[in-house]
Amino acid sequence: MVSLILVGFGGVGRALVEIMQNDADYLRSNFGFVPVVKAICERQGSLIDDNGLNLSNLLDLGDIASSPYWQAGLTTLEIIQEIKADILVECSWASNDGEPAFTVLKTAMQKKMHIVSSNKPPFYLKYGELKQIAQEKGVMMRIESTVLSAVPALAAETTLAGAHISSIRGILNGTCNYILTRMTQSKLPFKEALKEAQDLGYAEADPTMDINGKDAAGKIVILSNALLGWNKTIHDIKVQGIEDVTAEDIERAKREHKYIKHVCQAKDGKLSAGIELVPMDSSLAIMGSLNLVEFETKHAGPYTFIGRGAGGFEAASGVLSDIIHISTQLYDSKKENL
Amino acid sequence: MVSLILVGFGGVGRALVEIMQNDADYLRSNFGFVPVVKAICERQGSLIDDNGLNLSNLLDLGDIASSPYWQAGLTTLEIIQEIKADILVECSWASNDGEPAFTVLKTAMQKKMHIVSSNKPPFYLKYGELKQIAQEKGVMMRIESTVLSAVPALAAETTLAGAHISSIRGILNGTCNYILTRMTQSKLPFKEALKEAQDLGYAEADPTMDINGKDAAGKIVILSNALLGWNKTIHDIKVQGIEDVTAEDIERAKREHKYIKHVCQAKDGKLSAGIELVPMDSSLAIMGSLNLVEFETKHAGPYTFIGRGAGGFEAASGVLSDIIHISTQLYDSKKENL
Repeated sequence: MVSLILVGFGGVGRALVEIMQNDADYLRSNFGFVPVVKAICERQGSLIDDNGLNLSNLLDLGDIASSPYWQAGLTTLEIIQEIKADILVECSWASNDGEPAFTVLKTAMQKKMHIVSSNKPPFYLKYGELKQIAQEKGVMMRIESTVLSAVPALAAETTLAGAHISSIRGILNGTCNYILTRMTQSKLPFKEALKEAQDLGYAEADPTMDINGKDAAGKIVILSNALLGWNKTIHDIKVQGIEDVTAEDIERAKREHKYIKHVCQAKDGKLSAGIELVPMDSSLAIMGSLNLVEFETKHAGPYTFIGRGAGGFEAASGVLSDIIHISTQLYDSKKENL
Repeated sequence: MVSLILVGFGGVGRALVEIMQNDADYLRSNFGFVPVVKAICERQGSLIDDNGLNLSNLLDLGDIASSPYWQAGLTTLEIIQEIKADILVECSWASNDGEPAFTVLKTAMQKKMHIVSSNKPPFYLKYGELKQIAQEKGVMMRIESTVLSAVPALAAETTLAGAHISSIRGILNGTCNYILTRMTQSKLPFKEALKEAQDLGYAEADPTMDINGKDAAGKIVILSNALLGWNKTIHDIKVQGIEDVTAEDIERAKREHKYIKHVCQAKDGKLSAGIELVPMDSSLAIMGSLNLVEFETKHAGPYTFIGRGAGGFEAASGVLSDIIHISTQLYDSKKENL
């Protein structure tokens, strides 16, 4: 059994609870994983039950504030002080300064909790500080879903350890990729392609962070810190978006047998995020809303991982892989199954 | 420090020693990994030094039998009885019955050593038996390079744990893929494409196991056992090779906007390995000598991993990732870096 405090019950948090509930048998038999959710924290208050909340009942509630375990006004920081849990799972929200998530994560590690997060800003702003606290306190910090949801990009720290990653590049924003794909394949104008992406749920109602390149830039910052040992922030990268790409640009590229793509890169100590012309037979020439990350290695050439980089269940899947990883580390008896 | 017995000093074993030597600083600072190679076993005898062999000196030797630490006739099984090491690393050879590798791996686990192997036959013949011994003895069994070298396919057991893998398919043999690619893109006849693959070093002098599909079939057997919890052997799969593919077949497929590919699959309890017509825009339509594995998941769609699936340094990189994984499990002090 591993005990959790869950911060945030939006799309990701709710999907996480749903998977843990519906996959309970698979998770127990394959990974010895039996979660006990001691608290769920939202902005207006918290659900709390030291014996573990009933996940099935929870999912039946439209509004968790209607639960008998709901305590209005009880804050996440109060919960962290009051409740002892193995892992704090943070799937909430952060503004441009990384708060309130940053303080929540920091406080939880200071209380010796391991942390799992799907929240980007704390990690593209203050990765070094959080990593240092994790090391000082001897806790694990797993943040797969801050990058490409469940695509095991950050896991490459260990899974490609022997190959020795030397640089990273990728198509790190599905909305940008979808818009450019539609402009390329069906000659849609930018605005129409964006509208379609919004209608299909790929782009947010406010798609600014997607199309101005900042979302993708934050991801390459996190990748470079975690996998190349850098200590960068979003302020160390010059970011170009896709707003100014025209139908003419795309047609000109095609005549040179190239596609226009939004590419992020971490190489030779430098970060970049912007428009690139890539050959039509390049591994980066991936179409649709898919994401792609490619690791160049010292000993074994490039490795490419492709998958959906966004979505509630996708992010929750990555969060759950991180939770299971920590859980199997905590319980020696399961080590033979690693 | 982690102590190793290395079985086999051919292309993979030698590449492994070279990487451990040349990347010593990177491995120590990133993973706290400091290997002590206590013995290297070959068919004619073994090198042995309980204080750890000097890897740099070893690499300078053309023939390891000329080392002062060489003991002619000393067998791997004698070494396993005599020497205490954390991990037995098996990069040797096995015939169609899995021997001598199977007995070596089994004996090492019975002596409570963790094992890492790049040798396919023991695992596509007797996966269940070896896994059971590992569980009974509480040792780890890591075999990434038995499938696609350093492509972290078997690592998906944990890295995609949350997404819940439901089926697997892939292009699992680089020689087949190269031959079909050349037949498709340059209209080469089969025999000429095969000759080219041999000249370039993709195919073995005896390419039988590649082109008859058995090599790829062995890999999907191992993938299904490790990731889907099956207990299959190579005898449970009907295997088709690429020997009978003609130029006409390929042109006919092209007219339907399809490519001919050698595809392996594990789905709904069934294994397959053979020729398939795949749409030109399918994720399986990968060209050249690259390998590809795709995991369908219950919660987050498909995940595709692409990379080089063969070669001495590629296999050694996968073996080393496995060794590092075990090493970090053994030493708690490094856990915060996981």
